Amino acid sequence: MGVVNLMDICETPLTRISAAGGDVMHALKNSDNGFKGFGEVYFSWVEQGAIKAWKYHQNMTLNLVVPLGEIRFVFHIKNQENCFRTFIIGEERYVRLTVPPRIWFGFQGIGSGQSLLMNLANIPHDPDEVQRKKTSEIVYNWSTQ
Amino acid sequence: MGVVNLMDICETPLTRISAAGGDVMHALKNSDNGFKGFGEVYFSWVEQGAIKAWKYHQNMTLNLVVPLGEIRFVFHIKNQENCFRTFIIGEERYVRLTVPPRIWFGFQGIGSGQSLLMNLANIPHDPDEVQRKKTSEIVYNWSTQ
Repeated sequence: MGVVNLMDICETPLTRISAAGGDVMHALKNSDNGFKGFGEVYFSWVEQGAIKAWKYHQNMTLNLVVPLGEIRFVFHIKNQENCFRTFIIGEERYVRLTVPPRIWFGFQGIGSGQSLLMNLANIPHDPDEVQRKKTSEIVYNWSTQ
Repeated sequence: MGVVNLMDICETPLTRISAAGGDVMHALKNSDNGFKGFGEVYFSWVEQGAIKAWKYHQNMTLNLVVPLGEIRFVFHIKNQENCFRTFIIGEERYVRLTVPPRIWFGFQGIGSGQSLLMNLANIPHDPDEVQRKKTSEIVYNWSTQ
């Protein structure tokens, strides 16, 4: 495993197809660059203003899609110069983020009400490969103003 | 391939984990019975009352999860006795439906506003393995009253 870099996070535009009765929104195909295998898919709701931070995966590659609302993602690698990388994604900016392992990350609800995150991970949840820190342990200005 | 039966559709309860800032909702792991490989994951919105019917997949196994709202799914096999099988699933009844190929299906938005469907399919979208019929071509009483 080489040194991971925040520029290894890949943003891919996704298609929203207008359809009578409700739109169809692409998320991930097995032929996409970001696909690293299927371990688990789950959802995480996040309330407007709420912060879920920080987590670090030793082995998990994340594929993050926000079909409802808007979420700010913040990524961090200790001791790297531009040590935060931020994306605001969701309905209005409908893209997928592919995040390699060994990056600290957190996210915050930006959209009104609750926003919905889907994570498709290449391995199933394993408490032994996750590290956690309190929000305050990595200093970042989460202000939305 | 043997004869498919509506009883081959499998309903699996899913866990919703309460969490500060927003709940986590399980959807599918690679060790689950319903997992038949990863081809594609996509979302479909459906407006309250809207009907999306009918489709038939020659090869695709569907894994259907409704994290937001409530959707009625109707499944049909021509010439079988109890020829419709119906499920109403969503936030309040949070389960996964695993649907083998060669079953006609349609769905209808029941929840207020728009409901959200995630389908995790074992093969990517392929127009050559899908058949479609107009809603009226398979007679079903879609009334919600």
